[in-house]
This record gives sequence, structure tokens and C-alpha cells, in this order.
Amino acid sequence: MINAKGQKGIITLPTPVYFAGYATVAGGHEANGPLADRFDVVDENDEFGKKTWEEAEAEMQRLAFSTALRKAGLDEHDIDAVFAGDLQNQCVASNYGLASFDIPYFGLYGACSTCTESLILASIFCAGGFSRRAAAVSSSHNSAAERQFRSPVEYGGQRAPTAQWTVTGAGAFIIGSDQINGVPYITDVLPGRTVDKGIDDISNMGAAMAPAAADTLIRYFKESGRYPGSFDMIVTGDLGYEGTGILRKLMEAEGYSIGTVHQDCGLLIYDRTGQDKHAGGSGCGCSAVVLAAYILPRMQAGELRDVLVMSTGALMSPSSVQQGNTIPGIGHLVHIVA
Amino acid sequence: MINAKGQKGIITLPTPVYFAGYATVAGGHEANGPLADRFDVVDENDEFGKKTWEEAEAEMQRLAFSTALRKAGLDEHDIDAVFAGDLQNQCVASNYGLASFDIPYFGLYGACSTCTESLILASIFCAGGFSRRAAAVSSSHNSAAERQFRSPVEYGGQRAPTAQWTVTGAGAFIIGSDQINGVPYITDVLPGRTVDKGIDDISNMGAAMAPAAADTLIRYFKESGRYPGSFDMIVTGDLGYEGTGILRKLMEAEGYSIGTVHQDCGLLIYDRTGQDKHAGGSGCGCSAVVLAAYILPRMQAGELRDVLVMSTGALMSPSSVQQGNTIPGIGHLVHIVA
Repeated sequence: MINAKGQKGIITLPTPVYFAGYATVAGGHEANGPLADRFDVVDENDEFGKKTWEEAEAEMQRLAFSTALRKAGLDEHDIDAVFAGDLQNQCVASNYGLASFDIPYFGLYGACSTCTESLILASIFCAGGFSRRAAAVSSSHNSAAERQFRSPVEYGGQRAPTAQWTVTGAGAFIIGSDQINGVPYITDVLPGRTVDKGIDDISNMGAAMAPAAADTLIRYFKESGRYPGSFDMIVTGDLGYEGTGILRKLMEAEGYSIGTVHQDCGLLIYDRTGQDKHAGGSGCGCSAVVLAAYILPRMQAGELRDVLVMSTGALMSPSSVQQGNTIPGIGHLVHIVA
Repeated sequence: MINAKGQKGIITLPTPVYFAGYATVAGGHEANGPLADRFDVVDENDEFGKKTWEEAEAEMQRLAFSTALRKAGLDEHDIDAVFAGDLQNQCVASNYGLASFDIPYFGLYGACSTCTESLILASIFCAGGFSRRAAAVSSSHNSAAERQFRSPVEYGGQRAPTAQWTVTGAGAFIIGSDQINGVPYITDVLPGRTVDKGIDDISNMGAAMAPAAADTLIRYFKESGRYPGSFDMIVTGDLGYEGTGILRKLMEAEGYSIGTVHQDCGLLIYDRTGQDKHAGGSGCGCSAVVLAAYILPRMQAGELRDVLVMSTGALMSPSSVQQGNTIPGIGHLVHIVA
């Protein structure tokens, strides 16, 4: 599991772990995008029966996890650990949304990288024999994020062309070590390192995250000996239009041409011409819902066989940027095979 | 590792994991308390050479981790994963404080339970063979926490008698699976579940966390078959004076009398009569510095042999409480033997 040089590289799981179930919850903008019919639960008003956006997001986590359990034919007693996170201060969407489940709970903060951060931890708990099954849950809510990170949406602030649109979405995944025929499985993972290249533009998260994405991807190719074209798809989390261009140039500079197989969840979730979402989607929910609503079903249908998924996060806060700090990024990678 | 009934219980590590190194960084109030001479790095002004309290806390994490590495005779290349968290919005003390280290990074949010949450994950990565060595780092800073959760200290707000004092402290632990003679080791862990008993008083976190602490402790005793008096010490993270009384009553109601062996880090860190800290210390840094500065050295000196350590967290945010939500708690437990 530790490579020959004793470096912190790809972790090959001693046994592959399977996606026993997965589910998505999405809001109105997402349900009117290209993945319209693929979400399990939708509220066009983004409210989910709650009085505040923050509580709506907690409810989305609850709905995503309970739907994933139902689709897997399992109940909460079958799950030994849940790993969850979101963008709200103190991660309260996860804390409150999953509080009603009687399951050991690990709260995470990986910003928009949380989807694959949680999948790595769930995979390790299952592959190492520490859990029979573990869950990975993450979410974001546009209106909760806007008023926390920028301004309440009612303010009507002008957005920069490089700005991304926080996805209103939650994704839940149940990981297990029991083999299930025809279900995609994770064979190896590569945890990300923090990379800070000095970007300080809070309206250009794609640029802040792209160097971290490149760091992880280059390490993966170098260590595995594989090349981009040998994968059916390489999916990044939410680099958006700006970050995607930067990532591809950074990879090109290292001799890796990924353009033909690379997709970004932030570009898959909205219609770039029909929906006014500027540089694309972002948020913990972005890669979570695209993975669960689009990538895994396509793998299960036999359309994709060998896929790298890397959610990307910008590890800043509004205060840290106001205080003059630059924006560190991180990219956590999982290798999924069907 | 999974108990006979397939429940989510105690995880017995396949091999024990050792504390290869640990270090503490503390502020002025802590350095003037009962543990005065036991901290590795102290700044009486809580500034650590930085212009803001938030950056001071990030620097404390950097100092704690680099000091732990030095004390262990290791450098960053010897560490395969770091698990870290703090109380700042988006966990920026950890993100920025550890960004300069070239190590796979897992951001956590467990509120004041982060110390043992991170120790559980580091233990599992090492015991499962996924890392040679892993680090667990957590921190809190009184002035950063006050202005984020309540009011800037300059405001001089009156504090309730049940309120606790956020510790200015950072603790770092290096966990490894290579046996080291005379060094304490972790044999088993019990991850906490979220417990919400309806407490909504933001000035009484001890009451909010005590039921979660009781839930974890009772599960531990029932499943292990051991009783409180068979441990040299049972240490909770930051229940403080209020929460300690509630925990002991809750345990008593289940037939477990813990008073003779129970200590709380929030009561160990300040002098209750000499320092005006109301109900005691709190914050991610509280159990981290007491474990690293007081418990582990006493174990290493042969004064304690068999200890349960459980950091406790209140999983709320200022917004969630303002919006009328109650305060869920959690308690993550590690069993340490010397």
C-alpha cells in the first residue's frame, strides 16, 4: 500500500470496495440543467420543506442518505460509519442532517473536495476491515453559501465572469467490501496535498484549485505508470471553465494531454449557453451529485469502465481572504472501475 | 474488529499504534495555569508573531506539528497523512497552518472532539497498513473563537457562570505502527454518535455535550465488559464544571460510578479558584494540549498505565442556534495503554 520509496502516494486497497448504493438530491437550477431527469429527489424551490436555507441543506443530506440506504436495500443498522461534510460554518448541514441516524459520525471539512475525501475514508474503513459498510455524504446549497461567503441573493450583487455557481445538491454513497455484481468499485485512492500558488481572487476559485488538481493528477500518472488516454474519463470536481483551462495547460506542460478524456462536474451540471451560470458549478454538492447521478449510472450501464474522479477544494474562508491570505487548494482522487 | 452482533462498536486495532511524538503550543492563560511548565512552546501574548488571532492559531498548528516531528526525530517525509481540524469557519487554522507541509491532508470538523476524531483516523490508517505514520493536529484560540462565536474580546461582554473559556492551544500527535519501547500506544477506539438532548443554551456547552459523552462511555463499558475502576484514568475533553456533574449523574443512573477515576481536561487546564475561567476550559485545543502535555507524559513516566480519553464536541454554529436549533454533541474515545 505504501510505494517502494516509502512515499505518500497511491493507496491500493487490499480489496476493492463497492458502491452498494448512491443517491442525489438537487434544487431547481440543477433540475433544469442537462442532468435534469437523473436526480432522485428534487425541490424546484430549493426549500425542502424548511424555513431557512441552512436547514434546507441539512434536510437534503438526510434525504440523500436515507434514499441511498433505500436504494441499496439497507437500513441505518447496516452502516458502521458515516463521513460527511459541507460548506456551512461548523459544517452544520451535515451535523444536523445526519444527527437522527444512530451511526458513528466523522465530520469533515474539505471544502468542495469533501465528496472524494469522504469516499477515501469510507473506502479505507471498509477495505481495512474496520467497517462492514460506510457512508460518504456531502452537500452544498446556493442560497446558504451565497449569504455566508458573499451576500444574500436578495442583494442582487453582480457576479464576475470567472465566478462559479454553488450547486444546490447533496450526494450520498454507501461503500461496502462485499462484492456486488455489476456495481462499480474503488480500487485505489490518492489523497491530495495542499497547494497554494498565490491566487487571491475570491471570484476565481477555479484558478486557485487547478494547481492542486494538477499536483494530484501528475502524481497519479507518474506513480501508476498509466497515461490519460488509458482511462475512459478523468473527472474533476468543480474547476469550472476557468480552472479547466488552467488544469489542461498545467498538465500539458508536464507532457500529459488530458483534453480528450477530461470532464469537469462544474461544466456537466449546467447548460453553459442556456443557463447563466458564468464559469460553471461549484460546491461540495457539485461533484457529489454529478458522480452519483451521471458517472456511476453510466458505469453501471457499461458505458464507462475505468474512471478517475477528483473533487477539488479551495481551503479559504471569507475572513482569511479579507485578511490578505491567498487561497490554498486540494484535490482528492479515487479510481473507480466497473 | 466488528463485534459479534455486527454492531458499530469498539474497533480493536489489528496491531496497536504508538505515539511516536507529540507536542503542545499554548497561550498566556494556559501558561499561567496548573500545567504551566509542561508546554513545548508558549507565547504569553497569544500572538505567535502574527497580525491576526486567526493567523496566530494557524501558526500554532504549524509550530505544534513541527515540534512533534522534531521530538520524534522525524521529518515531514516520514509522515504519510495528516488529519487536522479547528473551530474557525472553514477550518482555516488547520488549512493554512499545515499548508506548507508536503503531506496528504484530511481536513476534519468535529468541534472540540477533533483531537480524538483525528487520533482515531490516524490510528486506523496506521493499524490498517495504509500509512507508516500519520499525524493528528488540532487547535483553538480564545480571541479567534470569541469574535467568531460571541463578540470580540474588546467588547467586554459578560459571561454566564456556565460558560467555558476557549483554550488557546494546539496539540500535535505522530502515530506510527512501529513499536517503540516505553511509549504509550492505542489499542482500540470507539467513534462517537451524534446525541441531541435538546439543550439550546449557547452558554452551557457542557450540558449539551455530556449526554454524548455518556452515550460513548456506556457503550464502551457494556461492550468491553470493563468497569470504570479498572482504568487508571477516564479523561473527557471539555465538559467543564457543569458538564462533568451531568456526565457523572448520567453514568450513575446507568450503574457506573466514575467519580474516582474521572478527570476533565477543561478542569485540569485552569486553576478554578485562582483563574477566573467560570465553568472551565473548552475548544479543540483543550483536550489536545492536556493529553500531550499532561496525560501522555504521565503515562510515559509510569504513573498511569490504562487510560480512556474522550474529546467531546458541540456540533452547532452561531447561525444554527440563532435559527432555533438545539445543540447536538459527540464524544470520540481512544483507549491508551502504556
